[in-house]
Amino acid sequence: MALDDVLAYLHAHRQTHVDQLCDLLRIPSISSQSDHAPDVRRAAEFCANELRELGLAVEIIEGDGLPLVFAQTAPRPDRPTLLMYGHYDVQPVDPLDLWTTAPFEPRIENDILYARGSTDDKGQFYAHFKALEAYVRTGTDLPVNLKFILEGEEECGGHHVYRFTEQNAEKLACDAIVVSDTALYNETTPGICYSLKGLAYMEIRVSGPAQDLHSGSYGGTVQNPANALAEIIAQLKDANGRCTVPGFYDDVLDLDADERAGFAKLGYTDDILRSETGAPAAYGEAGYTTLERMWARPTCDVNGITSGYGGQGAKTIIPARAMAKVSMRLVPNQDPDGIAAAFCDHVRKLAPAGVTVEVENLHNANPVLVPRHSPMMQAGIRALRAGFGAEPVFIREGGSIPIVGTFQACLKAPVLLLGYGLSTDNAHSPNEKFHLANYWNGARTSALLFHEAAGG
Amino acid sequence: MALDDVLAYLHAHRQTHVDQLCDLLRIPSISSQSDHAPDVRRAAEFCANELRELGLAVEIIEGDGLPLVFAQTAPRPDRPTLLMYGHYDVQPVDPLDLWTTAPFEPRIENDILYARGSTDDKGQFYAHFKALEAYVRTGTDLPVNLKFILEGEEECGGHHVYRFTEQNAEKLACDAIVVSDTALYNETTPGICYSLKGLAYMEIRVSGPAQDLHSGSYGGTVQNPANALAEIIAQLKDANGRCTVPGFYDDVLDLDADERAGFAKLGYTDDILRSETGAPAAYGEAGYTTLERMWARPTCDVNGITSGYGGQGAKTIIPARAMAKVSMRLVPNQDPDGIAAAFCDHVRKLAPAGVTVEVENLHNANPVLVPRHSPMMQAGIRALRAGFGAEPVFIREGGSIPIVGTFQACLKAPVLLLGYGLSTDNAHSPNEKFHLANYWNGARTSALLFHEAAGG
Repeated sequence: MALDDVLAYLHAHRQTHVDQLCDLLRIPSISSQSDHAPDVRRAAEFCANELRELGLAVEIIEGDGLPLVFAQTAPRPDRPTLLMYGHYDVQPVDPLDLWTTAPFEPRIENDILYARGSTDDKGQFYAHFKALEAYVRTGTDLPVNLKFILEGEEECGGHHVYRFTEQNAEKLACDAIVVSDTALYNETTPGICYSLKGLAYMEIRVSGPAQDLHSGSYGGTVQNPANALAEIIAQLKDANGRCTVPGFYDDVLDLDADERAGFAKLGYTDDILRSETGAPAAYGEAGYTTLERMWARPTCDVNGITSGYGGQGAKTIIPARAMAKVSMRLVPNQDPDGIAAAFCDHVRKLAPAGVTVEVENLHNANPVLVPRHSPMMQAGIRALRAGFGAEPVFIREGGSIPIVGTFQACLKAPVLLLGYGLSTDNAHSPNEKFHLANYWNGARTSALLFHEAAGG
Repeated sequence: MALDDVLAYLHAHRQTHVDQLCDLLRIPSISSQSDHAPDVRRAAEFCANELRELGLAVEIIEGDGLPLVFAQTAPRPDRPTLLMYGHYDVQPVDPLDLWTTAPFEPRIENDILYARGSTDDKGQFYAHFKALEAYVRTGTDLPVNLKFILEGEEECGGHHVYRFTEQNAEKLACDAIVVSDTALYNETTPGICYSLKGLAYMEIRVSGPAQDLHSGSYGGTVQNPANALAEIIAQLKDANGRCTVPGFYDDVLDLDADERAGFAKLGYTDDILRSETGAPAAYGEAGYTTLERMWARPTCDVNGITSGYGGQGAKTIIPARAMAKVSMRLVPNQDPDGIAAAFCDHVRKLAPAGVTVEVENLHNANPVLVPRHSPMMQAGIRALRAGFGAEPVFIREGGSIPIVGTFQACLKAPVLLLGYGLSTDNAHSPNEKFHLANYWNGARTSALLFHEAAGG
């Protein structure tokens, strides 16, 4: 059977495929650092060349920001079209001293590949390339039309891919969108993600005196911006760990009994949480398990506070200003814009007398929910089961992938969140890694998905 | 009359005395920066040489830290002895870009002298030197014995002068201690300070996860140290602006009716506070005026908060740690050690579940209260009245001068807080200044004090 040839090819070329991925990982394509812009372009060209060699029509699309790579197989109207999304840019590497070896010199130890971008996201989308290659090189008929849209601004919050999607819905038209930028459930259990949290990211700025004051001269006579900010933050959650923004929970889609039972069966314990995070205890909204809080309950968390003196020893001042970054992770069907507006109103009402309080909505992302029982989801499940040789579970993610909402809105096609990483792969952290087994099984899964998406 | 000769000398040498002060101000004696240690020593030698030229027996006292200068006139048992305290070290100068001209190149504009250390504290104690010089150079009999103790570690929290005082009470024995490191009431009204606040300076450290966590992956599942710290801080004060540390107010010596009336008569309004601080409004403990809060009520204020991300834009993390510096300004008869211990207990009880909270007492200072109706105070009032040509008022200060408590405890002599600066002189800030009128009137006041302290 032709599919066996494809899988045999992948097996036979495992080492070559690792070597090729390492070539891509050597390119320091850090999008948020402008001196690396040439490297980001090199990574785009690397991808474009490879897809061109596999026979696709490839365009490098310039625009406002870093380039997009768009590629497609010769369209055949009798088969379904999959749009594959990935990003070839990577996070910055600092703190560099915490890396065991250089971030752009890939190292393999115990069948784990260490490099910046290995799991986020080069290794993940490159597995699709290898699956396609297996079809092409074995002369196996590809049962789907493939389109690739790869961006270079995912890690720097660029807008190129958003504008392009909004303006080129016809070009990107497809029967399903495959986004590979998520994680398996754990090392032994593949998972398929059906929901992502959204985000409303806020900044609160409190100002009082014109400049820092001597706390002896003026302490007790003016409102202290740092104390005022602490008061505001303390009132953002109630004693049950629930966010106090009015209407915050109104549109929350509750978990159904089936989902809660599915989560419970996964056996994620607070001991696992403690060992993963190093936190002394689990803590969160009353009435929910840790996994329910992580995956399906909206949150409100401080990301940072800055005010006054933070150095060694004592400095006796009333700080002139205090600032906090606060993000709310949102779940279906919360509306980020509405929540952000309600947050602004709420904080302004909480503002104590004697200070000026500004609130700004830095950016938002929509939550995502994918139907679990769609044919495309079932195809993904079958591909994962065969690709990884284990029964996949349904999972959610607490993180956000804003482009997914734009794809859904513009392309009106179902999304398949098919990730091959692990949540413990140190994405965005030192010593980012990607397990070779997940890379190889991922390429198998992609190859199987092309088959399953066409009806098996 | 001989005193007239002294005052005439001071008048005639006004310009010379400014030039000499500028020489002292050119020495960048920043005690907290070790590369300036040679400059601190140079400032000590400058003072030692000048006192030696005036006929005093001078010692430069080495010990653990930067040197002390001790000097005394030839003791005559028939007259009272005054111990004059000052410090020849200065604060760091950053932010340097906010200075109009270089901090160690004195500049005079509109009869105001701008330089680091001009008001804090070189200009103030140097006025005493000039008063003494006037007696010596005019051949006028000095009616008191003078001792000088000058230190070089006031701005860096050094302990040399404390240890020396504790171990050399006999050497420093005196009938009164004159500390010139405070302020007049305002530009037109001399004041004499009879109370200083004490201090208990605390650091609260909250830790949660082992490292910053992705707020998508783990938000809502663990206690957020920044939120926890905000909760703790918010509970340190009640709705009336009162500190919630148990027993905090137990030992507070209330203002008597006379003091409240005296404060009220000064006419310090909230408009003045707003123009001095730039704060949008006055704010503080219910039931007290702004001046009462500033001078006679204990406070509890955040000096700084540090946690997580404070840069531009968004970073989505649960911070691993959060830290706050909190200081309590204390009034007679609060005990800093007892208050600090109560604060530690209180914060530990306020600590929310799911985080580890440490509290450290960084340092303390005792509050000071000087009897207003003692003979020494009356001598000070008379000297100020004649020196400045205006009726002095009784004032307090919200700041702390820890050495005063040590002097009181070890030397058992009354303290006279005779300051020639202004609270608006930018001590510790860019563009520190000293009004020449206050320098010259200060020298006159010192000369008159030597006369008045001996009974007039």
